[in-house]
Amino acid sequence: MISISIDMGGTFVKTGIVSNGKILKKGRIPVKDNRNFEATLLLITDEINRLLSIADVNALELNGIAIAFPGLVDYDNMKVTMTHKYPTAVDFDFIKWAKDNWDTSLALINDARMAGIGEWHVGAGEGTKHMAMITLGTGIGSFATVDGKRLRGNGYRAGNLFGHISLDINGDRCQCNNLGCAESLASSWSLPQLVKQDEELNELVKDDDSVINFKWLFDLYREGNAGAIRVADKCMHVWGVLAINMIHSYDPQVLVLGGGILNSADIIVPYIRKQVDKYCWLNVDEIKIEHAFLGEDASIVGGYFLLKEILTK
Amino acid sequence: MISISIDMGGTFVKTGIVSNGKILKKGRIPVKDNRNFEATLLLITDEINRLLSIADVNALELNGIAIAFPGLVDYDNMKVTMTHKYPTAVDFDFIKWAKDNWDTSLALINDARMAGIGEWHVGAGEGTKHMAMITLGTGIGSFATVDGKRLRGNGYRAGNLFGHISLDINGDRCQCNNLGCAESLASSWSLPQLVKQDEELNELVKDDDSVINFKWLFDLYREGNAGAIRVADKCMHVWGVLAINMIHSYDPQVLVLGGGILNSADIIVPYIRKQVDKYCWLNVDEIKIEHAFLGEDASIVGGYFLLKEILTK
Repeated sequence: MISISIDMGGTFVKTGIVSNGKILKKGRIPVKDNRNFEATLLLITDEINRLLSIADVNALELNGIAIAFPGLVDYDNMKVTMTHKYPTAVDFDFIKWAKDNWDTSLALINDARMAGIGEWHVGAGEGTKHMAMITLGTGIGSFATVDGKRLRGNGYRAGNLFGHISLDINGDRCQCNNLGCAESLASSWSLPQLVKQDEELNELVKDDDSVINFKWLFDLYREGNAGAIRVADKCMHVWGVLAINMIHSYDPQVLVLGGGILNSADIIVPYIRKQVDKYCWLNVDEIKIEHAFLGEDASIVGGYFLLKEILTK
Repeated sequence: MISISIDMGGTFVKTGIVSNGKILKKGRIPVKDNRNFEATLLLITDEINRLLSIADVNALELNGIAIAFPGLVDYDNMKVTMTHKYPTAVDFDFIKWAKDNWDTSLALINDARMAGIGEWHVGAGEGTKHMAMITLGTGIGSFATVDGKRLRGNGYRAGNLFGHISLDINGDRCQCNNLGCAESLASSWSLPQLVKQDEELNELVKDDDSVINFKWLFDLYREGNAGAIRVADKCMHVWGVLAINMIHSYDPQVLVLGGGILNSADIIVPYIRKQVDKYCWLNVDEIKIEHAFLGEDASIVGGYFLLKEILTK
């Protein structure tokens, strides 16, 4: 089976052509305007044709396209139901788009769910019945499998909204309108504000805040910059509390941490393990905390397994 | 089918003898020392005999006893796995106890789960596939049914630990050791501290803090006492944030609020509905917020359905 996976992240669209679970070729397109769904879709169309060409695969051999979308998705009917990023994607007919362009099948699912499916099949959650995953990136995504089943919920939201769990009863409004959400406290979109609140760190960026991202922060952290250590510790504390809440909510065997920020997994994962060990109801021997084994490829591989599941149903 | 339900609450043991889902007789025993499991078990043994007698039921007609326990329970093997209240209940052989005393079957489950089962079968969650429940009392309990199944998790904790979801990243230690847990911010055990922090309210109780409970607080609230309004609003805000987190976690059709504190449901439920409407991702037409239809009988009725499920398996 040959499929193409598209992960419409907040900063990059990641792509890959997958044959029997193995990635043949990958791509990475910067998103210029993540409010412009139509423009991004044109980039994706070109990218799919490019992947077919460089992998020397004829469109007739393609079994399907799996799209990981940054928003809530009704994955039974392949419809976007809610998104802050691409408002016009709501109700777009992805099935028709795949059919018209390549005469192929389509799977559409939330981005963190697609990464979670990858990790559950052949990653850190392989062989488990209970797995939870948090993806740390532009925003915070999540996914949960309990008692051997992926949680769905009444509106495809169960397990999927952990970025918008409130961790601060006295917190400020999140972009989503809720108070004190995890991703408003510590994610790539909220990092610039944290940096500016730290006098020492703000000195470094005052003329150009475009340098601010978690790679930059953790590089400074490694150099021993006191401001970077303060801000990074603050963020990791938030993620640690979020991890404990997720464990208390879903009672998994393994909690997987993924997403672009986990490029600094060597610092983040031990920090969160320590915090869970100290405060969580579960003993450290009852819960594994792991960096996504598939790293940034989790969603690309997940798309393959999702399509396989749909096509063999 | 005739069964007896025992709900070992933090302040009272509630009991009931149930015939085909209908409560024949009820009881309510104050708990003198909720660390002394053996003493409480003797009270329960006497109470079961009393219920059989006043309902004119012979022990031979009894199909089983269902016990709702304030702690974590492996409800496949009927073992308490973790409890702060009755430490010696861990590994107690409840099955043998029921067999030896009345030659009858036994079901053992966490107290909030048993209440949730009642509400799901014949209460506010009847006919739904997705229901979440929060019980507000001495502590905070919880229960969740997602996609038509009661969540279990790896260690019988899924859906069950929402009282220990951290709502305050800067919060103090809870009795459980975690930071800023919901029940450490607003439950019957944490109320005296909240009252003492309010100067005006503290004036009222300075010589006798044994009067402090949520009935007392909401009575003062109704009288327009400013201190009571401040403290009650603080608590209701915490429960509102908890409700939103629970909805974001499990995506239910209905969120049920139960437990003794909900004797003031007329004030609490509208407050939480308003908060959910204002901040939650779900529109108010997508989620019902209801006071437990069965009120304080939820666990008694739930015990009947749990036993029925076990005996017909």
